[in-house]
Amino acid sequence: MLLCDVGNTSYHFIEVSLQYSNTKNKDDYFKLKEKGYKKDVALFDASSVQERVFYICVNPHAKSILSKLDNWIDLSSYVDMSSYYESMGVDRIFACEAISTGVILDAGSAITVDIVKSRIFEGGFIYPGIRAMEQTYKNISSALDYSFNFELDLDRMPKNSRDAISYGYLKTLYKEVMVQDMKIYLTGGDAKKFATIFHQAKVDENLVFKGMIKIIKKADLC
Amino acid sequence: MLLCDVGNTSYHFIEVSLQYSNTKNKDDYFKLKEKGYKKDVALFDASSVQERVFYICVNPHAKSILSKLDNWIDLSSYVDMSSYYESMGVDRIFACEAISTGVILDAGSAITVDIVKSRIFEGGFIYPGIRAMEQTYKNISSALDYSFNFELDLDRMPKNSRDAISYGYLKTLYKEVMVQDMKIYLTGGDAKKFATIFHQAKVDENLVFKGMIKIIKKADLC
Repeated sequence: MLLCDVGNTSYHFIEVSLQYSNTKNKDDYFKLKEKGYKKDVALFDASSVQERVFYICVNPHAKSILSKLDNWIDLSSYVDMSSYYESMGVDRIFACEAISTGVILDAGSAITVDIVKSRIFEGGFIYPGIRAMEQTYKNISSALDYSFNFELDLDRMPKNSRDAISYGYLKTLYKEVMVQDMKIYLTGGDAKKFATIFHQAKVDENLVFKGMIKIIKKADLC
Repeated sequence: MLLCDVGNTSYHFIEVSLQYSNTKNKDDYFKLKEKGYKKDVALFDASSVQERVFYICVNPHAKSILSKLDNWIDLSSYVDMSSYYESMGVDRIFACEAISTGVILDAGSAITVDIVKSRIFEGGFIYPGIRAMEQTYKNISSALDYSFNFELDLDRMPKNSRDAISYGYLKTLYKEVMVQDMKIYLTGGDAKKFATIFHQAKVDENLVFKGMIKIIKKADLC
């Protein structure tokens, strides 16, 4: 069985093996491969896949292609949307579905920070990703053209330009996440970078896929 | 007497009248006109000014022109730089010189947040200005192309896209400023916008000029 998280730049696939056993606990059935693989969204021909693929998709163009393929099953229609909001990215929604209580920081081109309490989405905010924000400072002034310092002492007000922008980007985000006083889940391409400042956080790059499996189980699709 | 704060896009002038009186308190001598005026940095001919001008300048090109004009006096050399850092913008330094204790939020193309305690600069950080950050979100996704909502409830996690980016931009900054627990001074072109979220703050658009007057007095230049 294949899962696919379709973004604006790539199809992100991961294989799931089904571990048939005597137990009736479905948690034991699904086993995610440790690492997925990516295909360029502009080059990949989705109709070349013969297997059944459960997918979510934020990319409107890819969405219209996939809706015509019988073996590609859009999981988004199986989610109870009542606590989410209409324009919320479906990848954020599936990451939320993966946990019961906590803060999810998904660090990609944007950073989304979402709060889940007892399986209910409580709201969230959007912050620029690392590269977008470095570019922003650079555009303001060439004197602010630095990569962020993730080793920064967040307890001390900076006295140099690189730390002044790093603090502006990281400390503000850090405080707003920490004040929630909940378990922190880091996911997305830059999760490991943020683990250097959120020491207690759990890095889980497969959070969205885990949410997809939960929905597959709930809807009894497999 | 003229003061001028030279930025990357404009010469910002303000007139100061000298109130001669019998008192020996120099604080009574200098009176800033309420409103200054601006000249485009690319079009304005600084040598056309006959009066004595006390200035600061962050613009390297303008700086080299002004250094050749005898009636233009660069105030930056009269500041005790020991608590500041080398690459710090001179406008930030002069805003700090204007106060004895507090947080200064200077909201322009960048937002600088600086801490001063008992006339000593304690450090500061740099955050993108409103337009720079709106552009950043827009560049990440056309679905995030909104102007920020300054009427946002900062105590509630958002459940719509406009509030999700507004919260990401404003709440993080708000918290980091408020936690200092000091008097807040707002200055720069967007000071009034930020006054809608920093209710107790003092808006003072002439903070840099007030710092310049303090240095003129200290150095006995007038």
